[in-house]
Amino acid sequence: MTVKVMLRKDILYQNQKKAEELKKRFRDNRCKAINIIGSPGSGKTSVLEQIIPRLSGIKIAVIEGDIATTRDAHRIAALGVPVVQITTHGACHLDANLIAESLGELNLAATDVLLIENIGNLVCPASFDLGENLRILVLSTTEGSDKPAKYPMAFRTSHAVIINKTDLIPYTDFKLEPVVNEIQAINPGARILQVSCRTLEGIEETARWLRGWILAP
Amino acid sequence: MTVKVMLRKDILYQNQKKAEELKKRFRDNRCKAINIIGSPGSGKTSVLEQIIPRLSGIKIAVIEGDIATTRDAHRIAALGVPVVQITTHGACHLDANLIAESLGELNLAATDVLLIENIGNLVCPASFDLGENLRILVLSTTEGSDKPAKYPMAFRTSHAVIINKTDLIPYTDFKLEPVVNEIQAINPGARILQVSCRTLEGIEETARWLRGWILAP
Repeated sequence: MTVKVMLRKDILYQNQKKAEELKKRFRDNRCKAINIIGSPGSGKTSVLEQIIPRLSGIKIAVIEGDIATTRDAHRIAALGVPVVQITTHGACHLDANLIAESLGELNLAATDVLLIENIGNLVCPASFDLGENLRILVLSTTEGSDKPAKYPMAFRTSHAVIINKTDLIPYTDFKLEPVVNEIQAINPGARILQVSCRTLEGIEETARWLRGWILAP
Repeated sequence: MTVKVMLRKDILYQNQKKAEELKKRFRDNRCKAINIIGSPGSGKTSVLEQIIPRLSGIKIAVIEGDIATTRDAHRIAALGVPVVQITTHGACHLDANLIAESLGELNLAATDVLLIENIGNLVCPASFDLGENLRILVLSTTEGSDKPAKYPMAFRTSHAVIINKTDLIPYTDFKLEPVVNEIQAINPGARILQVSCRTLEGIEETARWLRGWILAP
């Protein structure tokens, strides 16, 4: 057990060193980076599909992380923004090395914001800094009200939580107020947004907030 | 990268050795073991809450895996079956060692079937054999139709897939037939069941199938 813990610490230390290099590289290119995490099917790609067209005038690039298939990358490419696919072939999270390797395919100097969609996983991605300036967690209402307490690290390390699929609340046991309270108890500074990619409830507000954050000095 | 891959191989090799010991222990005690995997919020605990009361006459014990909290264990304990909680404090999957350590708290010889609810994660648990005789994947319809292709290892290594939350299909883009086809393409032998823990559609059929499997010689 001790060996495993030590190895893990070393892997995280190496990742952090690489993430610091990425942070400098983003800064030098005046490019902000956003790491988007969440469970499989929480709606990370759907949220991006709605938000990206509402960020007109902002130069966007996207990195899509997937274990298998390039489906999400094709959905994003259809929006007309540069997209790089990272297929991990089984690995459960993106790491700073994978991001560094894929930056060669993007022109960071001509990019205002790099959106990185992580592997669908509410656990492992939370431990790996990708050099991002902002981490957004997408939570689906259909996942249930107990997720913040059960997956605290993901909620603690995120700057914002987008509660997605609010249109399905009437058909589930999801209770909005207790979930918001639980997120705030774990992470008092987190920005909490509510959206539905079907009814578009909350999408304009979320896009406005994101535009403000990207354009802030 | 080579080092990481080698470490991972060693971890998996050590796990497999321990899993073989578990298999023998289950066999010696005439106890069958089921490993239940799925995304956060796919409904693993809810399915157990419906199925366990329908397995009357069968001696059941449960191991609940969670990263944090003991909420699921309390839900299962309310059904009156012995339950052991494994809290991994961040670790993203159960492994054979954790199962071996927790068996001391259960009387295997007096148990017909051990139900192990894994960490909510569609990636990492797929790699770790817990010595189980049967692996069941719980997929929620709200996760979207693309999950089998995007998370192939979880679907390939499972003997059965329970498609949960069928009551929500009318409110989502989920397409049942293509998903069933995709699961069968990845894993032609998989038993595919459809349930709703709200309307109870498919619950009796699933319980009957499970009873038959448990009682088979």
